[in-house]
Amino acid sequence: MVPRQTSHDLRNESRFEVLHALFTLGPSTRQELTRHTGLSPATVATLVNEFLAAGVLRIATVERRTVGRPYERLSIDPDRGRIVGVDVAETYVDATVFDLKLGPLGNSAITLDEHKNDPAYVVDGIVTATQNALATVDADPAELIGVGVSMPGQVQPDSGVSVFAPNWQWHDVRIEELLENRLGISVYVDNPLKAITLAEMWFGVGRVTDTMAVVNLGTGVGAGLAIEGTLIRGATNNAGEWGHTLLQLDGRECRCGRRGCVEAYLGVHGLEMTLAEIDPDHPALQQLLQPGFIDAVAEGLAAGDAAVAELVDRTAHYLAAALGDLVNLLNVSYLTLTGWTTAAIGQWLIPAVHRELPGHVLPGSLPGLVVEASAVPGNPVALGMAAFTLEQYLGKLGVPGPASALRPRRQGVSGSGQDRASTGR
Amino acid sequence: MVPRQTSHDLRNESRFEVLHALFTLGPSTRQELTRHTGLSPATVATLVNEFLAAGVLRIATVERRTVGRPYERLSIDPDRGRIVGVDVAETYVDATVFDLKLGPLGNSAITLDEHKNDPAYVVDGIVTATQNALATVDADPAELIGVGVSMPGQVQPDSGVSVFAPNWQWHDVRIEELLENRLGISVYVDNPLKAITLAEMWFGVGRVTDTMAVVNLGTGVGAGLAIEGTLIRGATNNAGEWGHTLLQLDGRECRCGRRGCVEAYLGVHGLEMTLAEIDPDHPALQQLLQPGFIDAVAEGLAAGDAAVAELVDRTAHYLAAALGDLVNLLNVSYLTLTGWTTAAIGQWLIPAVHRELPGHVLPGSLPGLVVEASAVPGNPVALGMAAFTLEQYLGKLGVPGPASALRPRRQGVSGSGQDRASTGR
Ligand SMILES: [Zn+2]
Ligand SMILES: [Zn+2]
Repeated sequence: MVPRQTSHDLRNESRFEVLHALFTLGPSTRQELTRHTGLSPATVATLVNEFLAAGVLRIATVERRTVGRPYERLSIDPDRGRIVGVDVAETYVDATVFDLKLGPLGNSAITLDEHKNDPAYVVDGIVTATQNALATVDADPAELIGVGVSMPGQVQPDSGVSVFAPNWQWHDVRIEELLENRLGISVYVDNPLKAITLAEMWFGVGRVTDTMAVVNLGTGVGAGLAIEGTLIRGATNNAGEWGHTLLQLDGRECRCGRRGCVEAYLGVHGLEMTLAEIDPDHPALQQLLQPGFIDAVAEGLAAGDAAVAELVDRTAHYLAAALGDLVNLLNVSYLTLTGWTTAAIGQWLIPAVHRELPGHVLPGSLPGLVVEASAVPGNPVALGMAAFTLEQYLGKLGVPGPASALRPRRQGVSGSGQDRASTGR
Repeated sequence: MVPRQTSHDLRNESRFEVLHALFTLGPSTRQELTRHTGLSPATVATLVNEFLAAGVLRIATVERRTVGRPYERLSIDPDRGRIVGVDVAETYVDATVFDLKLGPLGNSAITLDEHKNDPAYVVDGIVTATQNALATVDADPAELIGVGVSMPGQVQPDSGVSVFAPNWQWHDVRIEELLENRLGISVYVDNPLKAITLAEMWFGVGRVTDTMAVVNLGTGVGAGLAIEGTLIRGATNNAGEWGHTLLQLDGRECRCGRRGCVEAYLGVHGLEMTLAEIDPDHPALQQLLQPGFIDAVAEGLAAGDAAVAELVDRTAHYLAAALGDLVNLLNVSYLTLTGWTTAAIGQWLIPAVHRELPGHVLPGSLPGLVVEASAVPGNPVALGMAAFTLEQYLGKLGVPGPASALRPRRQGVSGSGQDRASTGR
């Protein structure tokens, strides 16, 4: 049967609404929070009192009036605690310490050996990067309220959190448990598409729209989706695999085993294949590592290299077609591009996509369509994981038990993943 | 800025939740409605009182107990009024009269001349079919609470309801206004993808899931989407155009002007093209009308015709690939197929799709995936339009003004179409 929302879920959604409003509006009165969230004044008053009691909110300014009670402007207390957001990829771990306003305080990155990726090795890397990052800011361990870790694979919330990462031969690795045992603090695990989407909802185009696709272009490609304020997770937390939708039936082989996927054309390896079709002897193809290849392409573009210019044209054709599919299916108006391919060659790629896009989008979905590089600062994966961790923490306020023990999923797991954190309305 | 939900929207969503629960559960106590909807007992009590006062609900049974108040079981009063649901296609108008429980009472269909489709001609056809349908059930005009009309085009809720139908050279035709002037009753206009999705949510797999794709296979193809109980409309009510996502970059020409769209392979004309590739002289291709072609294919399949068997194999390959894209992007577990191609050849097509599908779906999204013909009875477009009309009617209860004047959009239009009727929570 349909998993129904409990009033506890609804209360959490209201908490996240108020939290999100505080990030969007900055220091706010209760009246402003009420107007922005559409919640009742009584609900906002209750949640604000909870947040004040927990020290998460503080009174930033008081505005006296000639009649009536003074207006109090509330803001998140950045120094109420620290959160670590960790971006784990196949070749690195990047950990960032944030304050409670999600301002970055310090960072530490380590390299992972691609050939040594058993769980114990990866857990060691995450623990080391986290501890190094905390050391850079001289954080008191008691200040730490949680660690959010993005894992490159399928993160399954059912029966605890397990990770399925075919590239690592991981099956059902219970990474949250392993990390909590080592770190002695609550850990929240999710995947990078969900993290970049939450970051975009809070700190990117989420300030002007509640419906968006956040398109990651890197080794892998994918699209995080938010529809009317809800982060789309899907039945098994696996939504967003736009990289494994078709561009070309029975086309290039994809690493997922299917042929013709978007990723086989728009992932970095796909770009390498396209350049090899244009000029098999191009020097950029001598780069052994994907970042080296993308940097060489960017250098070639800056230098007026005709082969890489042709690569950008073909890639823009593929990308406009694949983005057109997202727009036609979901009628989203905002698509933001992120990932290191976007960072390196977006300035050439995005204008070419703008020229191609009208040929791929239905006329009714074209007016007002915005396709642009994401304006989220820093590492959006780490930021999004910190935001999830903050949501989890606030979700425990007012619930019996120590507020810093953030294991709501262990206590109320639903098959649909619906009770996982998500900024909803 | 983000259009925020008002408390009026939230109240409407709660109304639709209670209404949907009554359709799902049948006669229910207030306690059962509270448990099923997750709403507070006070909210359910208020809404039930509103519905009782309007005569929409009646007390079906009373169960006396030894202690405390008796349990009242509530059900929708089918005879409180009549609704007409109208399915307008390029070649016909099909009108069905429903009671308030959305049981069909009578039906009337007329043929439209494909070459005469100016608005006045189509409006005449809709009015005639509606009046004929009402005459078949001898309905008192005073009983009619609204007419819901599905139009084959892009239905834009902004600034009144206008229809853009390129095949008819219609631009911004204000069909609701034209029909209300002729029928003297509130008219609600939407498009068929939205209608089949609402019908599926209320009377199909919506009974066991709140997330689904409803795939229409006919002259046109499309996929209505519901995610966690919300019907996906998109920024301009244009979501669901899966028929105009890519199967083959730069492939067959599509009538939308793009090349390689799903519809160019899975619409009836696409099937004709595939059969022509297999056997250009096949007799089924002599059929002048698309229904005749599909019937000839079904007859060939029943008779063991090798060319049409090959047509089904190739079509299943295309369909499995295109459904795989929906699953990979959205991680939906339920896909139901509808439309007249499904009705005619689904028994051969669907098993072939089941065999192909695992090759197109990511392993993490495959467990529990259901692809089947829709079990919604009758014409799902007419049923869905009647359901929308009932939602609109209930949305006006408790609002100042005559309850039967259902023009909420005229009074509170939002650019995102969010305040249109949708079964949401
Ligand atoms: Zn793939
Ligand atoms: Zn098309």
